[in-house]
Amino acid sequence: MIKSPMEKESKKLSEKSTLGITVKKSEDTSEWYTQVLQKAELIEYGPVSGCYILRPAAYFIWEQVQAFFDPLIKQEGVKNAYFPLFIPESLLNKEEKHIAGFSAEVAWVESGGHSKLPERLAVRPTSETIMYDSYKKWIRSHTDLPLRLNQWCNVVRWEFKHPVPLLRSREFLWQEGHTAFAAQKDAIAETEKILDLYEKIFRDLYAVPVLKGKKSEAEKFAGAEFSLSVEAFLSHGKAIQGATSHHLGQHFSKAFDITFANEKQEQEHVWQNSWGITTRSIGVMVLMHGDDKGLVLPPRVAEKQVVIVPIVFDKDTAQKVLKEAEKLKKKLEKISVRVHLDNREGYTPGWKYNEWELKGVPLRMEIGPRDLEKKQVVIVRRDSGEKKFFPLSQLEDEVPALLEKIHHDLYEKAEKFLKESIVSVKTLKEAEKALEDKKLLFAAWCGEPECEDKFKEKTTAKSLNSPLKQETMRNEKCFACGGKATLKGYFGKSY
Amino acid sequence: MIKSPMEKESKKLSEKSTLGITVKKSEDTSEWYTQVLQKAELIEYGPVSGCYILRPAAYFIWEQVQAFFDPLIKQEGVKNAYFPLFIPESLLNKEEKHIAGFSAEVAWVESGGHSKLPERLAVRPTSETIMYDSYKKWIRSHTDLPLRLNQWCNVVRWEFKHPVPLLRSREFLWQEGHTAFAAQKDAIAETEKILDLYEKIFRDLYAVPVLKGKKSEAEKFAGAEFSLSVEAFLSHGKAIQGATSHHLGQHFSKAFDITFANEKQEQEHVWQNSWGITTRSIGVMVLMHGDDKGLVLPPRVAEKQVVIVPIVFDKDTAQKVLKEAEKLKKKLEKISVRVHLDNREGYTPGWKYNEWELKGVPLRMEIGPRDLEKKQVVIVRRDSGEKKFFPLSQLEDEVPALLEKIHHDLYEKAEKFLKESIVSVKTLKEAEKALEDKKLLFAAWCGEPECEDKFKEKTTAKSLNSPLKQETMRNEKCFACGGKATLKGYFGKSY
Repeated sequence: MIKSPMEKESKKLSEKSTLGITVKKSEDTSEWYTQVLQKAELIEYGPVSGCYILRPAAYFIWEQVQAFFDPLIKQEGVKNAYFPLFIPESLLNKEEKHIAGFSAEVAWVESGGHSKLPERLAVRPTSETIMYDSYKKWIRSHTDLPLRLNQWCNVVRWEFKHPVPLLRSREFLWQEGHTAFAAQKDAIAETEKILDLYEKIFRDLYAVPVLKGKKSEAEKFAGAEFSLSVEAFLSHGKAIQGATSHHLGQHFSKAFDITFANEKQEQEHVWQNSWGITTRSIGVMVLMHGDDKGLVLPPRVAEKQVVIVPIVFDKDTAQKVLKEAEKLKKKLEKISVRVHLDNREGYTPGWKYNEWELKGVPLRMEIGPRDLEKKQVVIVRRDSGEKKFFPLSQLEDEVPALLEKIHHDLYEKAEKFLKESIVSVKTLKEAEKALEDKKLLFAAWCGEPECEDKFKEKTTAKSLNSPLKQETMRNEKCFACGGKATLKGYFGKSY
Repeated sequence: MIKSPMEKESKKLSEKSTLGITVKKSEDTSEWYTQVLQKAELIEYGPVSGCYILRPAAYFIWEQVQAFFDPLIKQEGVKNAYFPLFIPESLLNKEEKHIAGFSAEVAWVESGGHSKLPERLAVRPTSETIMYDSYKKWIRSHTDLPLRLNQWCNVVRWEFKHPVPLLRSREFLWQEGHTAFAAQKDAIAETEKILDLYEKIFRDLYAVPVLKGKKSEAEKFAGAEFSLSVEAFLSHGKAIQGATSHHLGQHFSKAFDITFANEKQEQEHVWQNSWGITTRSIGVMVLMHGDDKGLVLPPRVAEKQVVIVPIVFDKDTAQKVLKEAEKLKKKLEKISVRVHLDNREGYTPGWKYNEWELKGVPLRMEIGPRDLEKKQVVIVRRDSGEKKFFPLSQLEDEVPALLEKIHHDLYEKAEKFLKESIVSVKTLKEAEKALEDKKLLFAAWCGEPECEDKFKEKTTAKSLNSPLKQETMRNEKCFACGGKATLKGYFGKSY
């Protein structure tokens, strides 16, 4: 059916009028977030609840994560591979705690073509079981170790909580590393090394500071010996897990009978890890840096780092300005700046400013006839709104320097916020007060799952993680139950 | 359960004894193929029939395809995105011919967690329907066109024919490009441009010559206006489709109501294409170049382009040789040659030669004490077996040159075979004779689906494609039915 031109036009106008973000980030973060994702063209809602479309602007960010992380792990000796999407039910069930943790959220394939399948197939929620079924075949001797594989793929977890794009979606993209070692200490050393690389992704790409630490017993991965995580803390008082690195001990190697002959030709079970970072990290970045005008992209993940907006008043000057803008674009491209020239006709400069601010482009460059005369441009920073004139001749130095500065300023601002948000508490009362103030708690704790359960019930907050290096506890009391404290850790409301 | 050392050892020995390929390629190509895939560690069989594991050696090849093709399409203005894996049944059914073509091979998700889903979800066999559901929202005006998106992902086709790793697997990896244009001629021009890029992948990465052309009505994509393909021809007389580029016309834009306002503000339906290349291409390469000793890798996709095997007789010389081998390795790495030093102890050089030949490494470098004295190495080409001495001082020039030469020699050899395999036939009898001789047919044809059906039934061969540039037919007769010929095309047995 052909839509009438009028129908189209009116739809377009109404879209234009609500182009900007209509709520303040601080007043309704959840509405702000979904508006930013859609209006900045990062995410489109698909026909299946909880499954979202990563539009080019979002997928570009994921490609930057891949381009950054992939060489780092390859340098460490990890190789990429690809394992099947479908896991037979019987295989998924092999490690008891693992299946207990995942069974409620598995999507099951039950027919192929017009036939019922003899056994249900899980759409992978994670690939431990299917990968270790092969590890058993490939590992024979200590000379086959370490075995370190990674895959970049999609996974499905059929969550029944309210789905949120990127943060809690039923399908997401991730990398999952799966490694096997002869010695436990080597496996454990790897979990920490990988955690450092995850911190690096957040710090060096997303400009997001994170807290590194160990998850509690209640919060660890289903089937892990222990789980490490990086956690970010957002302006509305909620923490969010950014990536995890699990030491699986011998839980899976015993369930899957993965053994090797050591140097004395004795059979031992391997020690294993698994670790992953997902497209959720994009959502963390959006929530961390965005403001009431929309998205604020850290320059290293921005598809467009600079947008040039030519200011033209009449046809005479237009040609000159556009020519200079083109030259400028080429000049910046030559030094690998990702630059876009917005030479669309029929849009005012002001309209264009709003659009690129909404979309988070780090730098806007305005160039008009008077600037041409003065051989200068106006540059406006998206993060701070700072506006300055720069001589045309200096742009090849100034633009990359500015982009770097924005990255560091975003990081510092976020780090300052994180530090100011951490409150040390000694009692449950103090904890409740701090949570009301949207703070992140740091407290001495007994570490008991029952204590965490009660705390969670009472406050809807939970333990995030505990720093890897702990001071010795000297008669400290658990802030929540008053029992003997065994470690100090972070607590807070969390996604 | 701990396996006893003896059990392991005996298994290992028996593996060693059957390490090589036990059949000749020409005598039992199918058995040869599955042995090569597994013994060269490209593929492992998984627990679900038809779903295979791409081991690092195979995945590396796919990464080369990605690294080669992705910048080429981005340069053309295509952007990457990611659309959901699951397609609601009602959406998949929207384009009649499309669903008719795919319904028999869709894997269906019917439950999530412990609940039945209200509507079955297809695991994407291809993404036209889910993508175009969004295209409808995104496309309003001619200024939104062309819209050109691509995704690298997994797809599932629950085939019931005998599955073959890489060639006919139930899950495979691919890229799928989906584009929409205002003018049909631009869409059609793109299908041909993309076909050229696919030819380039086969020629410049895989060293495989292909036939470019248009598929018959019977063989075109379900829902396409026409389909273009590249086809390769293998030594055992079977052709195989390598990649396809489809012009969808307005079939989908009408089913999905994807319209745009043209410059006169009139509504029109967009013209669409979709195009893809899959991990099947790896299988084509394996079948094309492999020999009785195993895999033969074209240098540009080889994870290891050179393997250095040190020849050591005693401890005195061993140290010197290994030191030189290390130096050599570093020297070659510096000029971006992918080189592996096989310094494993406890394996004879001969054993190592066999292993690396089986795995298809393009160049083997042998270095022993006498070579050290003479400041030379022995280099053996995997493709030709040619063995030559080279002075150490010249390796930085000679090795890259040799790798290039191997690529071109492999291509030329394959091209010569292809040319010699093509037989022009004028009658069904000639065709049957040529098929018996494992040839590829070129023939004038009526182009009628009924004629193709009969030909297929009679010979088990089918039409492959027809060159895009056709001479005018002058009273030629169809080779198969004797009717009026309308075009010339290729026919053959095919995967």
